[in-house]
Amino acid sequence: MIRFDCDYVEGAHPAILDLMLKSNLEQTVGYGEDPYCESARQKIRAACQAPDAAVHFLVGGTQANATVIASILRPHQGALCADTGHINVHETGAVEATGHKVLGLPQKAGKITAEQVARAVESHYAESTFEHVVQPGMVYISHPTELGTLYTLAELTALSETCRKYRLPLFVDGARLGYGLAAGEVTLPDLARLCDVFYIGGTKCGALFGEAVVITDPALQKDFRYHIKQRGGMLAKGRLLGIQFDVLFTDSLYSRITAEAVAQAARIRAALCARGVKMYIDSPSNQQFPILTRAQRAFLERDFVLSHWQKLDDGHDVMRICTSWATREENVRRLIDAIQAMPE
Amino acid sequence: MIRFDCDYVEGAHPAILDLMLKSNLEQTVGYGEDPYCESARQKIRAACQAPDAAVHFLVGGTQANATVIASILRPHQGALCADTGHINVHETGAVEATGHKVLGLPQKAGKITAEQVARAVESHYAESTFEHVVQPGMVYISHPTELGTLYTLAELTALSETCRKYRLPLFVDGARLGYGLAAGEVTLPDLARLCDVFYIGGTKCGALFGEAVVITDPALQKDFRYHIKQRGGMLAKGRLLGIQFDVLFTDSLYSRITAEAVAQAARIRAALCARGVKMYIDSPSNQQFPILTRAQRAFLERDFVLSHWQKLDDGHDVMRICTSWATREENVRRLIDAIQAMPE
Amino acid sequence: MIRFDCDYVEGAHPAILDLMLKSNLEQTVGYGEDPYCESARQKIRAACQAPDAAVHFLVGGTQANATVIASILRPHQGALCADTGHINVHETGAVEATGHKVLGLPQKAGKITAEQVARAVESHYAESTFEHVVQPGMVYISHPTELGTLYTLAELTALSETCRKYRLPLFVDGARLGYGLAAGEVTLPDLARLCDVFYIGGTKCGALFGEAVVITDPALQKDFRYHIKQRGGMLAKGRLLGIQFDVLFTDSLYSRITAEAVAQAARIRAALCARGVKMYIDSPSNQQFPILTRAQRAFLERDFVLSHWQKLDDGHDVMRICTSWATREENVRRLIDAIQAMPE
Amino acid sequence: MIRFDCDYVEGAHPAILDLMLKSNLEQTVGYGEDPYCESARQKIRAACQAPDAAVHFLVGGTQANATVIASILRPHQGALCADTGHINVHETGAVEATGHKVLGLPQKAGKITAEQVARAVESHYAESTFEHVVQPGMVYISHPTELGTLYTLAELTALSETCRKYRLPLFVDGARLGYGLAAGEVTLPDLARLCDVFYIGGTKCGALFGEAVVITDPALQKDFRYHIKQRGGMLAKGRLLGIQFDVLFTDSLYSRITAEAVAQAARIRAALCARGVKMYIDSPSNQQFPILTRAQRAFLERDFVLSHWQKLDDGHDVMRICTSWATREENVRRLIDAIQAMPE
Repeated sequence: MIRFDCDYVEGAHPAILDLMLKSNLEQTVGYGEDPYCESARQKIRAACQAPDAAVHFLVGGTQANATVIASILRPHQGALCADTGHINVHETGAVEATGHKVLGLPQKAGKITAEQVARAVESHYAESTFEHVVQPGMVYISHPTELGTLYTLAELTALSETCRKYRLPLFVDGARLGYGLAAGEVTLPDLARLCDVFYIGGTKCGALFGEAVVITDPALQKDFRYHIKQRGGMLAKGRLLGIQFDVLFTDSLYSRITAEAVAQAARIRAALCARGVKMYIDSPSNQQFPILTRAQRAFLERDFVLSHWQKLDDGHDVMRICTSWATREENVRRLIDAIQAMPE
Repeated sequence: MIRFDCDYVEGAHPAILDLMLKSNLEQTVGYGEDPYCESARQKIRAACQAPDAAVHFLVGGTQANATVIASILRPHQGALCADTGHINVHETGAVEATGHKVLGLPQKAGKITAEQVARAVESHYAESTFEHVVQPGMVYISHPTELGTLYTLAELTALSETCRKYRLPLFVDGARLGYGLAAGEVTLPDLARLCDVFYIGGTKCGALFGEAVVITDPALQKDFRYHIKQRGGMLAKGRLLGIQFDVLFTDSLYSRITAEAVAQAARIRAALCARGVKMYIDSPSNQQFPILTRAQRAFLERDFVLSHWQKLDDGHDVMRICTSWATREENVRRLIDAIQAMPE
Repeated sequence: MIRFDCDYVEGAHPAILDLMLKSNLEQTVGYGEDPYCESARQKIRAACQAPDAAVHFLVGGTQANATVIASILRPHQGALCADTGHINVHETGAVEATGHKVLGLPQKAGKITAEQVARAVESHYAESTFEHVVQPGMVYISHPTELGTLYTLAELTALSETCRKYRLPLFVDGARLGYGLAAGEVTLPDLARLCDVFYIGGTKCGALFGEAVVITDPALQKDFRYHIKQRGGMLAKGRLLGIQFDVLFTDSLYSRITAEAVAQAARIRAALCARGVKMYIDSPSNQQFPILTRAQRAFLERDFVLSHWQKLDDGHDVMRICTSWATREENVRRLIDAIQAMPE
Repeated sequence: MIRFDCDYVEGAHPAILDLMLKSNLEQTVGYGEDPYCESARQKIRAACQAPDAAVHFLVGGTQANATVIASILRPHQGALCADTGHINVHETGAVEATGHKVLGLPQKAGKITAEQVARAVESHYAESTFEHVVQPGMVYISHPTELGTLYTLAELTALSETCRKYRLPLFVDGARLGYGLAAGEVTLPDLARLCDVFYIGGTKCGALFGEAVVITDPALQKDFRYHIKQRGGMLAKGRLLGIQFDVLFTDSLYSRITAEAVAQAARIRAALCARGVKMYIDSPSNQQFPILTRAQRAFLERDFVLSHWQKLDDGHDVMRICTSWATREENVRRLIDAIQAMPE
């Protein structure tokens, strides 16, 4: 069986393993204060054109989300987000476990708008008993979203302006950021300029594990390492994270491997469209959501593992197909062949 | 400079990296449900003679502690532990962040006794306003302790009996368990039989990272994966943890490499004692705590990085010297040579 | 101005103040262990036909909700409720502050159904990654609901059966329970029989303050006083709560005064309907939600304070009119006169 | 039996009940925004010579402590306090339940010093791994302390200066503040000037219940009402608290009744000393801690309820004797008679 169900079924890019192997018996200090972490930090700051950004390496996405959010909010505040946001539906209440309500807003294609944020804040303070309601304290978005879609630069700029107007820190979950950078118009310097915190996903974009949290707002930088330690994200052998991001940000490896995956996804999508398959959502990134008949699904699932997203109706299922930095060209070809051969 | 300051300054045992490399492009399901994790689980259950134990792999120790403790306690309960316990002093309040008080008891050589636990419980319920006081809800110990000392089998048995009498789950933090197994009389089957939960430390005992949580009490097994996810410990590429523990529990690798480190520590201690150096604490495991004069300290710190534990008086410091699975024989010899050459 | 905006604008029923005054200089033990509390407990157990129920007195509703819910749930669990439920929208995230997600379900007339609960549980476990999602751990309903509506006995029985099938404790917020008992078919013994915990609201039903939490499930009774203390609900002079509930449950005072308020509300509704005013929701209890034109609203607001519930459209507002145990007959007549005189 | 075991065994000062009765059927808005609360606030601001202070009324002390502390600290911070501090030993972990460690310091006579605070902060930052330790984020003291002792103005001034130097908000728990003001040299304006937040205890000083939280630091005033609501302390009929503090701060009632209780306690202490009884602690306020022989204790407990503080040795117990605003002169005389008649 060939897996296209998600983008974390393999290990890491070989260049990462090479450096891990080469440095294995070196002795370094722990907890992210070693030269590999420092080098990775410098490269990320350069790539973001944000020389004063704080950069921290955490092990995973749920941890990064809960740690960042809990570090920002006061107890009576919550995080505005799309109601499909990962923190709202797929992290076992990790944010609530830190004491904060997730304030879901109705999404369109996985996204929320500046207008929605403005309205949420205005209507909060318009209530006479507003102090009986959780106060919007920040905004969380994912880029790409959980549905593979992307914010345009104009959309992100509008969100940023609205957030700044209402003094709401803007936090971007970049678990799949590499694919978003490859597929859309928003760049790392844009993110650094328009957001207050964001993270550059490693786990799904070439690393064994790890997310690089970039904090551009100086007010949010203070004491962040305490939060990492408290939430269990302070890796003793922190250099493992430094090594990975150092390699990913050398010679644009991060961009190159994610761009390749996006191109593969586009070719799979084209093959599906050529067969008349409709897409549940129009995603430009490495996740595709075709609507398949039961017969088509059964046909493809003989050789490929896809992800079942949801049942659409009695005859159709929405499936998710992911490519990744590790997707082999040969497997893409075999999937496309199968798509061409599948029944109506 | 040669580092003897702690036991996590290098990467992982080469056999682990070999399997990681070899399996790198295999495709597996995520979140710890892959064949490597399953194989590691079986080997750990066998080593513990606990065929029904639940075994979970978490990334680090602070995370393992907070996740296990929060999964056990009800809101009004706290964890009894030595006041030097890692959860009480060195995890940035991770347990309190889950809502629970850490109930420190005065320690002797880093250890607490069955009698202390019994007294704490009895005196709790003897207070007329006991409901105004946090209820002891479990017991946390470290083995080896933060001071390198070990519980004897009799001490652990007594603790276990007391805990069962008062229905307090007993949880053993085994961040350095390998060195404890090598240096003391308590075995993995003893731990499985006498405790309700414990973990087998990987980070400090040969792995890149990772702790294997073993839950023997069936009542504590239920729903534990939810807790792992909520606390940010559910590694997407869970197999990385499975691979590491699978290798460590093949052909007794875990025992062999930690026994070697304990033997090295014993030789260093012998060299110190031969020079008349007193030990701050009598540790049989891989951590040694010599009391050095300022001159001795300065002499050794020309070539070696030691850890400054505490200032004893105006003329003396307590230092920590650690060996590990990665300590090179040649470096031990050089340290012993320096000890022999250092001033009075 | 005459207030009809809510049901807590006056003090307490005079009989309560009488006993408070009479007992003022008596000396009793604190924290709810005095004879007044004990007497009130016995009367409540009798009224509920639940001789083994635990009865506790807490100061207010938000506190009662958070204390009960936090005492029931494990960290990875949330409370299913109507998305209009008080805990979801009007308690500043008090439940989330204890670490738990509120799992809102779409409501109809403020209510949820047994089918919705069953579906929520079934679909939770049907997800392959269910451990990444907050587990439904209990059900919270309000009776009357926030919209004044009531569960029928059949609806409550169905909810109870479903909850027991899935082992979800059923908790009923009875902040306005008196009005619900007076207006509907569900009785105190029904609640005691069908729920696991509920509370009998005092604040809005004749007392100065206070809610009587009735715990019928023995498993939920254990250690509840610790939770009360921890959440700040353990009143030092606990007898103040005992006195109030003792009076309310003497000679059916609680039923009598709330029945009177419901009758007044019915007369006001009849007067509104006679004028052709539509109701936003069909409430049989002490809260009424007429849809008024701007002119009607302005007319009534010259002499009466009503509560603005929401804007319906450019010409109409939904208003809330509440009666209470303290509503004077004379004021009801004046309001009805004004309704008869108001413009179209 | 005559109770001297604590200072909350009776109801409220009659003048409070009078106004409560008189205003009972008045209609006012809820949640502390009524004219009684406003009047009480003005009187408290005047008494504190703090015209810009925010004043909020909460129901009880544990609630006030947890609400204030949780509103001040960030997640990685804890509250420094005496290890005998009420929040550390007698509130069922209410502070930890909001996620924060209580950082106990060794006390002397229930008090901590400016030097201890300075040392705690300095030694925190002196540790190389300080981010692995809970950061001191504020200071909590009680005045009077749990042992009845008082800070001198010099001691409080030194604490205040140290706190400001290290930017640690200083919070004073004034559950028994009335007795402290009567017995010591620190005044309300001193507290307002030297602390950032403090509360004026009502429950133990003449009210049925209620504590007036005074926030002088503007940075801590923002959004405090959200916190009150979230922690369950927002009384629907808030005027009940306003009424009580309005009466207490009219014509110096608060000072007068607490001064009387302190004078009574002094006479009881004098009688004890005249019999050669030693005091466990030298308390100038309404709580006295005599060391009694078993025979003396038995003799007094025939007619009086005292509080057993702790067993001192096989022959002696430390007892607590409390007077209060409600202590009857006649009962003081009877207690003194008994003291004079008790055995050696």
